[in-house]
Amino acid sequence: MTREKLMNVEEFRRALEKSGFDAVVAVSQPNVFYTSGAFITTQKSIPSRLAMTVLPKEGGDVLLVCNIEESLARTESWIEDVRSYVEFAQSPISLLADVLTEKGLADGRIGVEKKYLSAAFYDELVEALPRTRFEAGDSLFDEVRSIKTIGEIERYRQAGLATERALVEAFREAKVGQTERELRYSILDKLARLGASNTNFATLAAADQSWHGHPPARDRELQPGDLVRVDVGAAFDVYGSDVARMAVVGNPTELQREIYAKHRQVQRKAIEYMRPGVRACDVFQRCVQTYAELGIQCPGPHVGHGFGLGGHEIPMLQPYNTLELRPNMLICIEPVVMLKGIGGFQLEDLVLVGEDGAEILTTYADTQELFVIR
Amino acid sequence: MTREKLMNVEEFRRALEKSGFDAVVAVSQPNVFYTSGAFITTQKSIPSRLAMTVLPKEGGDVLLVCNIEESLARTESWIEDVRSYVEFAQSPISLLADVLTEKGLADGRIGVEKKYLSAAFYDELVEALPRTRFEAGDSLFDEVRSIKTIGEIERYRQAGLATERALVEAFREAKVGQTERELRYSILDKLARLGASNTNFATLAAADQSWHGHPPARDRELQPGDLVRVDVGAAFDVYGSDVARMAVVGNPTELQREIYAKHRQVQRKAIEYMRPGVRACDVFQRCVQTYAELGIQCPGPHVGHGFGLGGHEIPMLQPYNTLELRPNMLICIEPVVMLKGIGGFQLEDLVLVGEDGAEILTTYADTQELFVIR
Repeated sequence: MTREKLMNVEEFRRALEKSGFDAVVAVSQPNVFYTSGAFITTQKSIPSRLAMTVLPKEGGDVLLVCNIEESLARTESWIEDVRSYVEFAQSPISLLADVLTEKGLADGRIGVEKKYLSAAFYDELVEALPRTRFEAGDSLFDEVRSIKTIGEIERYRQAGLATERALVEAFREAKVGQTERELRYSILDKLARLGASNTNFATLAAADQSWHGHPPARDRELQPGDLVRVDVGAAFDVYGSDVARMAVVGNPTELQREIYAKHRQVQRKAIEYMRPGVRACDVFQRCVQTYAELGIQCPGPHVGHGFGLGGHEIPMLQPYNTLELRPNMLICIEPVVMLKGIGGFQLEDLVLVGEDGAEILTTYADTQELFVIR
Repeated sequence: MTREKLMNVEEFRRALEKSGFDAVVAVSQPNVFYTSGAFITTQKSIPSRLAMTVLPKEGGDVLLVCNIEESLARTESWIEDVRSYVEFAQSPISLLADVLTEKGLADGRIGVEKKYLSAAFYDELVEALPRTRFEAGDSLFDEVRSIKTIGEIERYRQAGLATERALVEAFREAKVGQTERELRYSILDKLARLGASNTNFATLAAADQSWHGHPPARDRELQPGDLVRVDVGAAFDVYGSDVARMAVVGNPTELQREIYAKHRQVQRKAIEYMRPGVRACDVFQRCVQTYAELGIQCPGPHVGHGFGLGGHEIPMLQPYNTLELRPNMLICIEPVVMLKGIGGFQLEDLVLVGEDGAEILTTYADTQELFVIR
């Protein structure tokens, strides 16, 4: 069945017109899905098996896939012109060159995803079409996708809420003596039961690993005093989530409670501060400033990121990014403090930028208090 | 804790010497893990957050990571010289250029993973070090990794067996009326209980989707007559699997039973044929020939692939690949036939190439008969 078209077609057409490109070519899984509706899982598991969309300024979009993926692509995509290559018999780049030539674009200016396409494939493309002016077209896709449609917002809201719920329910059932791996698995199990089709990542960092960024969960039993930090990204069909929550095993120490409270305050003040026109770097600085007032040094390198099909998307909330927030951006706000010997502190919520301010979408359970596992 | 060093150090040093490179730089997750022991999950979830190893011919390896991953990298890696960059403040490529310069390699010949590094990062690297001769170094890593060490073989054997077991147990418990999603989830659940930390991919293709390559599982109930094709890759810690099995709901039709039997015969004859010195394309042709004898046209584009950290690895068993099989290669052998209106037929097993022939490692349950779900 053809998938529902949630892409922002008007914004995309406007951006393409403004870019001066004669066409853009999508190569990454997020951009191919966004512009075609075909979700090709092997774009991630087998990166050399390219799938692409060719999107000319004049219209007449084409979807290019490996023959193995053709029947699914024809079922899912709203693009009717689907071309396939036989893997190993033909290079996907030679098919792309054929399609660009056929469309009269061989002398044109073409935007390609240079941040995604490998140097080897890019070299092959430039060699195949020496007269074509290939340029980086990544930012066109990034910008269009950063403003979500109503349909997208609803899907990410549901994905975020279900993920938060899985985390909280797993925390509620957790017990002293359960292993890190068991608790991590309990979260994944609840995610699946709440409808997740995949887990993109799931970090459970406990005790002396809580201040590592993304350590593996261990067969070690949870003990009183352990801080547990969980950061999970699940996919509900195609639409993902990115939520982080914390817990402590047994009664928290005064220090754990205090830093958690301060940390949460930083996150909440940043959310209150977010609205259209505020720059990404200003949100970062707002966190630095609140941390400083509370006596904590903010480590960076960022305090959050735009969220969508690509996971980390624009705007990155980092100190050098002057991009302004705009209505219908979705942001994962996640200041993080890693204090070696004390703990890693992280809360991550999904936030929608509205006309008058930011709204938290992950509201299944309050995070006021550090969750206690008994 | 530093991870066990399973890389084939001697083979790597020999290959590096033979290549003529002054150093090679690993950029992909498989190669960074293989050469350092640090498993950085964000290399996949956040591709712009590069992690790299610089491996000079003269020794003195360096591991480069984002500051967020530094504490884990120092814990896991056997490389003592770990350098970090602060994301957004410094580009990972500028740190790489600094390290190459410091090591006296700025005038050298450097092999990089051009099939993995993006065109944008590659351009930045070439601009940062205009005197350095950068060349594609991918095949050096591919070739070394294609010959597994004893420790690796044992891990992949365990991963393959556990995956096969999860599939078979889920089939045994499956029932008419269970939905496709429920059966898929049952497999993931068993995988996790058998020790899997992640699922890299899990395709369950049933009924009128069984001949699509990688369709999503649906909320549709399994019905008598459905063919169910499952292809799963799980990760046990870092070491993965890739196993496919089939079942039919209720009594198979004569046609289903017949094609399954022929299909399995093709796979088994290919395995019997595999031994050191046989070329990858010969294994492909062997399948084409057996299929032809049985009256089926082999669709290709491949009938299997080397298996390891990268999923699809060399040797790809495809018609144009003249690479010879060598002892201690691990191969996933998976001829596939997609017959629209009848069904998609796939069995995938992990096979070890030994001195005298090939040994199937995924031997938890026989595949002689098409599994029947009652």
